[in-house]
Amino acid sequence: MYSFRNDYSEIAHKNILDALSKYASEQNVGYGLDSHSSNARKLIRKQIDRDIDVDVRFLIGGTSCNKIVISHVLRPFEAVIAATTGHINVHEAGAIEASGHKVITVPSHNGKLLPADITKVVHEHVDEHMVVPKMVYISNATETGSIYTKAELTAISKVCHVHNLILYVDGARLGAALTAIGNDLTINDIAQLTDLFYIGGTKNGTLFGEALVIVNDDLKNNFRHSIKQNGGMLAKGFITGIQFEALFTDDLFFKLAKHANEVANILKNKLTDLNVEFFASSSTNQQFINLDNNIITRLLEKYDFEIWNKGNTSSAIRLVTSWATPIEAVDEFINDLKAILNK
Amino acid sequence: MYSFRNDYSEIAHKNILDALSKYASEQNVGYGLDSHSSNARKLIRKQIDRDIDVDVRFLIGGTSCNKIVISHVLRPFEAVIAATTGHINVHEAGAIEASGHKVITVPSHNGKLLPADITKVVHEHVDEHMVVPKMVYISNATETGSIYTKAELTAISKVCHVHNLILYVDGARLGAALTAIGNDLTINDIAQLTDLFYIGGTKNGTLFGEALVIVNDDLKNNFRHSIKQNGGMLAKGFITGIQFEALFTDDLFFKLAKHANEVANILKNKLTDLNVEFFASSSTNQQFINLDNNIITRLLEKYDFEIWNKGNTSSAIRLVTSWATPIEAVDEFINDLKAILNK
Amino acid sequence: MYSFRNDYSEIAHKNILDALSKYASEQNVGYGLDSHSSNARKLIRKQIDRDIDVDVRFLIGGTSCNKIVISHVLRPFEAVIAATTGHINVHEAGAIEASGHKVITVPSHNGKLLPADITKVVHEHVDEHMVVPKMVYISNATETGSIYTKAELTAISKVCHVHNLILYVDGARLGAALTAIGNDLTINDIAQLTDLFYIGGTKNGTLFGEALVIVNDDLKNNFRHSIKQNGGMLAKGFITGIQFEALFTDDLFFKLAKHANEVANILKNKLTDLNVEFFASSSTNQQFINLDNNIITRLLEKYDFEIWNKGNTSSAIRLVTSWATPIEAVDEFINDLKAILNK
Amino acid sequence: MYSFRNDYSEIAHKNILDALSKYASEQNVGYGLDSHSSNARKLIRKQIDRDIDVDVRFLIGGTSCNKIVISHVLRPFEAVIAATTGHINVHEAGAIEASGHKVITVPSHNGKLLPADITKVVHEHVDEHMVVPKMVYISNATETGSIYTKAELTAISKVCHVHNLILYVDGARLGAALTAIGNDLTINDIAQLTDLFYIGGTKNGTLFGEALVIVNDDLKNNFRHSIKQNGGMLAKGFITGIQFEALFTDDLFFKLAKHANEVANILKNKLTDLNVEFFASSSTNQQFINLDNNIITRLLEKYDFEIWNKGNTSSAIRLVTSWATPIEAVDEFINDLKAILNK
Repeated sequence: MYSFRNDYSEIAHKNILDALSKYASEQNVGYGLDSHSSNARKLIRKQIDRDIDVDVRFLIGGTSCNKIVISHVLRPFEAVIAATTGHINVHEAGAIEASGHKVITVPSHNGKLLPADITKVVHEHVDEHMVVPKMVYISNATETGSIYTKAELTAISKVCHVHNLILYVDGARLGAALTAIGNDLTINDIAQLTDLFYIGGTKNGTLFGEALVIVNDDLKNNFRHSIKQNGGMLAKGFITGIQFEALFTDDLFFKLAKHANEVANILKNKLTDLNVEFFASSSTNQQFINLDNNIITRLLEKYDFEIWNKGNTSSAIRLVTSWATPIEAVDEFINDLKAILNK
Repeated sequence: MYSFRNDYSEIAHKNILDALSKYASEQNVGYGLDSHSSNARKLIRKQIDRDIDVDVRFLIGGTSCNKIVISHVLRPFEAVIAATTGHINVHEAGAIEASGHKVITVPSHNGKLLPADITKVVHEHVDEHMVVPKMVYISNATETGSIYTKAELTAISKVCHVHNLILYVDGARLGAALTAIGNDLTINDIAQLTDLFYIGGTKNGTLFGEALVIVNDDLKNNFRHSIKQNGGMLAKGFITGIQFEALFTDDLFFKLAKHANEVANILKNKLTDLNVEFFASSSTNQQFINLDNNIITRLLEKYDFEIWNKGNTSSAIRLVTSWATPIEAVDEFINDLKAILNK
Repeated sequence: MYSFRNDYSEIAHKNILDALSKYASEQNVGYGLDSHSSNARKLIRKQIDRDIDVDVRFLIGGTSCNKIVISHVLRPFEAVIAATTGHINVHEAGAIEASGHKVITVPSHNGKLLPADITKVVHEHVDEHMVVPKMVYISNATETGSIYTKAELTAISKVCHVHNLILYVDGARLGAALTAIGNDLTINDIAQLTDLFYIGGTKNGTLFGEALVIVNDDLKNNFRHSIKQNGGMLAKGFITGIQFEALFTDDLFFKLAKHANEVANILKNKLTDLNVEFFASSSTNQQFINLDNNIITRLLEKYDFEIWNKGNTSSAIRLVTSWATPIEAVDEFINDLKAILNK
Repeated sequence: MYSFRNDYSEIAHKNILDALSKYASEQNVGYGLDSHSSNARKLIRKQIDRDIDVDVRFLIGGTSCNKIVISHVLRPFEAVIAATTGHINVHEAGAIEASGHKVITVPSHNGKLLPADITKVVHEHVDEHMVVPKMVYISNATETGSIYTKAELTAISKVCHVHNLILYVDGARLGAALTAIGNDLTINDIAQLTDLFYIGGTKNGTLFGEALVIVNDDLKNNFRHSIKQNGGMLAKGFITGIQFEALFTDDLFFKLAKHANEVANILKNKLTDLNVEFFASSSTNQQFINLDNNIITRLLEKYDFEIWNKGNTSSAIRLVTSWATPIEAVDEFINDLKAILNK
């Protein structure tokens, strides 16, 4: 039974585990004030290569990071704009609302936001009977595997600038985005164009952990208070630090993401060869296809994956590859599917 | 430089790291729905050995656990009673209030609550102009290293029962409490006497992670919603599961805590021999002593520890031992202190 | 300059002001525990004429009432379903989200919800990564002036019962609904079919104040705590009590609402005679029509009203009548409009 | 039966009711954007007579005002310092905590705060494991009837300035404070020394309503959003405007408060003559005395008042006078007490 269910099925990449073993008997101060966290911060800053300083905060997971950022940045009557497909809208059990903030939804264009939709929301919120739109939340790669081009992100950044909106990028799969075919964004571009973004570790080889990069100076103060208050401050913060040290050594972050994309691309090409219909257009490590329900049932005997959009006769399924996915798993899956399809 | 700063200075006990390495290439489902979490749950249930079922939820840390529990259990106008020294009162950056709930403080008696103080709070809160006291929060071992006896916990449990209050035990250092000299409580007793409690991993050998035990049936429903909403649900939940499997195999949980206590006891006895004044009476792995500030300054050249209560000429310091503290570290510390004291 | 801007432009109906004057020198206990509030409660219970007891709570305004109800009823991870046009969704400055709860929107059918949309939401929220839909919010009359029939409300009530959802009716304009042409609901029906609803005073002749009727026993306890905590408990609660005593004496509540509807109906018929296009179909005291922008500009010289939906060449305007609107105001408006239209 | 229970037992002063009757048929725009509110704002600004602009916002009650101010001003991890006796600490059903903020208590010195206690709190809150003290809440007159002198308020203002704390005065009984014997503060002084304060109407002759004065420019933006979101925006805001117009015409505000104080002072002197023991030292319209419980029981046959501090044999009672209290009521009470005491 091989699982294409997600990109967080295995504990962690060997380099991560090796690093933890290496420092197993070392004593470190707690709460992220250790030298490993400090060093990891430097490696990430170097990767971003900006002339002005950015803050880097290591957090434990995506929902926690999104909740802390939004809780920290917004005042009570301010709201965040997201696509209907945005992770904060549906899949975080109301975490944003629990922090007191409305999520204003705009249509999803294959997971992405259009600048015009942002402007429209701003124009609709005119007085004190409505919330004040103050932040734009996007994810890159998006929840459906698509990525923003430099032109697209620049356009969104501009509209945010015009309307005094904070731009925040959920980078749970930022590695996948930055190493995708067709990507023309660098991590430096993202730091230039946004106010804050996070670099996902959980879905790219770590045990857990995300690195939040705060670019906008106004958002930096007291951020550790917000982490602590939201239960996101790990006592052994150095464990996250050690992991990100390893992840940003020898380009491991990019290598792992690239592998996931490459395997996904092979899968995509072979599915195309089989004339399978795609449910969404993705250039990253999530591929969405439509299959008859009886075919899905037969595949589930040998593979694990998520049924994304259930229909009466056919459904969309999601196939996720990761840093850990062997090409053989894809080959076998394709062979089995081919057999089922009688091709 | 040896650190007595806390009991979470080292990554994790060897058994924990070995378990993670052992399962490094295994695929698991996410969010705590894996077989390791399930097995760890069984091991903890077996340890508790209760005839009725308890729920076990694996969480990432103490503040997160406290916040989730209180947010889940209380209605908006309900409040939690804690000692002034209680962790939720001062050291969680307002996490409980951020969830909307007042922390009503009562005097600390060497870190512990007295039943009479609970009754007094209940009697003072008479109408709708005041919050409704609904939960009692205690920690065992307490923040100052003391422990509850079975008689004391039974008395608190009774007063909670009389006034329809939920009793919750913060067990960040439950291992230390249960293996302390003078302890007469078992983990089964705690399950009999309380509504929920957590078994601390972070301060007893894991990378991170606490096991919340929900005894009271009324509090079980939708608990996973509360975990998710508060950002406490780890994608790779199986990592916590694997750690607690190891911790509750071959009594590792108790062995590690016992070691920490034993080393602390040696330290305590030798400090007593040196006629050092104790700031608090502790039978667990935290020892608090008063020293002249110039002596503290000299000790800090070679040791790391927390200054707990700063005075102009003398201060209280906290010395914490752990599962990882070698007896040699204590011997050396005592010798150095003796030399400084010219004894 | 006559204002059709809303139904809360005048201080209060004469009977209300007279009642206040009558009791001006009387001393009363505070916080709604006075005899006037008690008597008003009895009058409302009598009006409802149910064999089981209902609680009646006097609140200060619609947003406050909605916020208190939802905060009181829902647990943190539970959400409320509303039409996109629902007052709580857009026009309460995020009050519901500020209390921690997501508003799940479904399509508006002329301001009303369809049972099938409720079922769909329930089916979509399957696990702990999503909020739990637990309440349905409807308004009657709706924000666009339409009303629910007994069959429609019964169908919604049934679907709520099936899915264990609390049904709450925002009755800011309940008087208008119950006295509208085509209405077949009684206040007793509403009490039979819902868990709680409020009887609006502000938009039907009082200075301020709404009477919340809590039918469902499970929702009654500690409600006064929720009122107080949300800042909704008036020190001089007897002022609200006195007003509702007057409002439910000699059917004043119904007479005032009926007058507003009758004037609106005359307006509607005359607008129909003028072949003016209606923006929404309303049988109550709000009428929505489309007019060319230049016509609107000319009308605004002499009348005040809200531009509901602004277009480049034509817009929808809202004309609201009230208990205080003289028929002459409608006649004059129609004459002026006729002149502008050259008819 | 005469009530000394509180200063909000009667509907409203005649001038207030007359003003409402006068404008009964007038149409006004809603939500406080009317000309009466605007005029009342001007009258209050004139009263304050400051060379820089202040914002004036009309709110519905004390708890609502406190909740809105604190919710508006503080970021999530920031806390407010108050005396243990402060209204926000005990008597608002957790309203402040429900908005997410901790109330840090300091000792009450006859209802007042000492600057040294504020400094101590600031020094104790050193890192991100604790909340950030950011606001100081005081009431004037205090909950026990005492008042701040100009020197005392200046000292608190200075310590707030030093530590970058917002100073907020709850003026539910500001009229009583400003007209008390021994008072040397003007309303202008208060505006000079604080960031925001409110001028209480409810306890000084209005039906309801408080006028919040925002002095600090940084706190002004979006305040109406905070009012609306917290359910504190009255549809018929002009009703509050009309009341404050009347209250700040011909010094009514000061005359009413002065009357309450004068009657209280007569009561105080006569109680002193009777050698009754005072529970607290008050120069305003609340007097607190200790009496044997059997004497209290007899007084309760003819008078209503609050038992403030219940003891086994004797208790403290609170006697409150108001703008509406006739001197005769005091005389009669004293005569009756004298008779009971056999003096």
